[in-house]
Amino acid sequence: MKNINENEKTENPLRRIKLTVAYDGTNYVGWQTQPNGVSIEEKLDGAVSRLTGRPTRVIGASRTDSGVHALGAVCTFDTDMQMPAEKFTFALNPLLPDDIVIQASEEVDITFHPRYDAKGKIYVYKILNRRLNLPLQRFDTYFYYKSLDVERMDEAAQHLQGTHDFISFASPHFTAKTTIRTLYECNVRKDGDIITIYVKGDGFLYNMVRIIAGTLIRVGAGAMEPSQIPAIFDAKDRDAAGPTAPAKGLTLVETLY
Amino acid sequence: MKNINENEKTENPLRRIKLTVAYDGTNYVGWQTQPNGVSIEEKLDGAVSRLTGRPTRVIGASRTDSGVHALGAVCTFDTDMQMPAEKFTFALNPLLPDDIVIQASEEVDITFHPRYDAKGKIYVYKILNRRLNLPLQRFDTYFYYKSLDVERMDEAAQHLQGTHDFISFASPHFTAKTTIRTLYECNVRKDGDIITIYVKGDGFLYNMVRIIAGTLIRVGAGAMEPSQIPAIFDAKDRDAAGPTAPAKGLTLVETLY
Repeated sequence: MKNINENEKTENPLRRIKLTVAYDGTNYVGWQTQPNGVSIEEKLDGAVSRLTGRPTRVIGASRTDSGVHALGAVCTFDTDMQMPAEKFTFALNPLLPDDIVIQASEEVDITFHPRYDAKGKIYVYKILNRRLNLPLQRFDTYFYYKSLDVERMDEAAQHLQGTHDFISFASPHFTAKTTIRTLYECNVRKDGDIITIYVKGDGFLYNMVRIIAGTLIRVGAGAMEPSQIPAIFDAKDRDAAGPTAPAKGLTLVETLY
Repeated sequence: MKNINENEKTENPLRRIKLTVAYDGTNYVGWQTQPNGVSIEEKLDGAVSRLTGRPTRVIGASRTDSGVHALGAVCTFDTDMQMPAEKFTFALNPLLPDDIVIQASEEVDITFHPRYDAKGKIYVYKILNRRLNLPLQRFDTYFYYKSLDVERMDEAAQHLQGTHDFISFASPHFTAKTTIRTLYECNVRKDGDIITIYVKGDGFLYNMVRIIAGTLIRVGAGAMEPSQIPAIFDAKDRDAAGPTAPAKGLTLVETLY
């Protein structure tokens, strides 16, 4: 621990550091600290507090669920440490477990807020679509053994693009003020045995990407038509959409500013 | 457990079943049973014994090291069970942990030997080559942060192709009668941040693929020239080649018959 005396405390003004974080969410209760297990957030709080020598909490842009992964989650913390901003990455990584790796650190304006200033996010949902599961892919793909028709899924994905009321694609537990969201891009591609659902939007309701994935899987399996998507929007009813696909297939790829 | 009386034992002749097995080797001491931890082999022995109702041991084609993975490891076992051969896959998988998944089962001639009848093997060695590690790839790639020149690595790989005395590329602990081996194919490709070394050969000495990988990494990092490969063969000296790359990057892709 570093000792910081009162003089230093008043001499160095606080700076806000933005971290871009990748993690394997398998062994966590999710981003947010909860009573029933270990969170990503508390691991980052611990590393930052240890480095800066004083109790510090990070503020995250996205509260991913248990089992959801990230390549580009974003959080900030405030510190008076005088280290060059990009060095925080290399100073913090040794204080973190193997399944959390900071990818970048930069100084931002002290008024920057990771959640309120975010302009959008990119997620991918990965499905391992083959007859038998593959052990090395069991943590970051959802294994689905029945053959899925990717062209149908992609056709349905086109209908999801644009500005809509996504209330049918939100878990009833949501707390958002409005359920109108814009998907800038939504497509489905296949590479070998892996089907990837790509979504880029201005914001996402609770479980929205997983419900989109569950709905597109239903379309790919032939249980729903791509042309039914507009009717799901019109229903404004969670039950009109498909099931919530498992968390493990979901990765937050990028937080856009 | 199934009870099999003496009459049944003599009525049903033994059949030999060939299994193709995929596994994540992270949590195992390797293929072969050892006193100091859990092996892939003993997990398969346990599943087959439980299914058939009598103590049964599998015979493997390859004894992969601790941490090495497989998509196409092969083993056989003998049984008098009258189940259609392809059903063993689905009967055994529920008896195995998540990190071992049988991909295929078929009946072979009772004289078939998985090791002696193998005509060759395909391995890949995967390197995650970027500035910072990615948590989701930490189990099946070797993270190397310094930028590697893939063209140089591929040029060196060309020199490795063909029939050579691979004694310089073998751990001194090998037990093979001859150190002459043929590499039918050896190449290096890059896709995003992942560099893949592909090797297809008639057989491999102990640690041979990992020493090839360690040597190619040295070439890619600029510490060795592609043109030095013939001199490494000529030296017939393990110290002439590069270091043994870590086990975690290695996957046995296919066993050829």
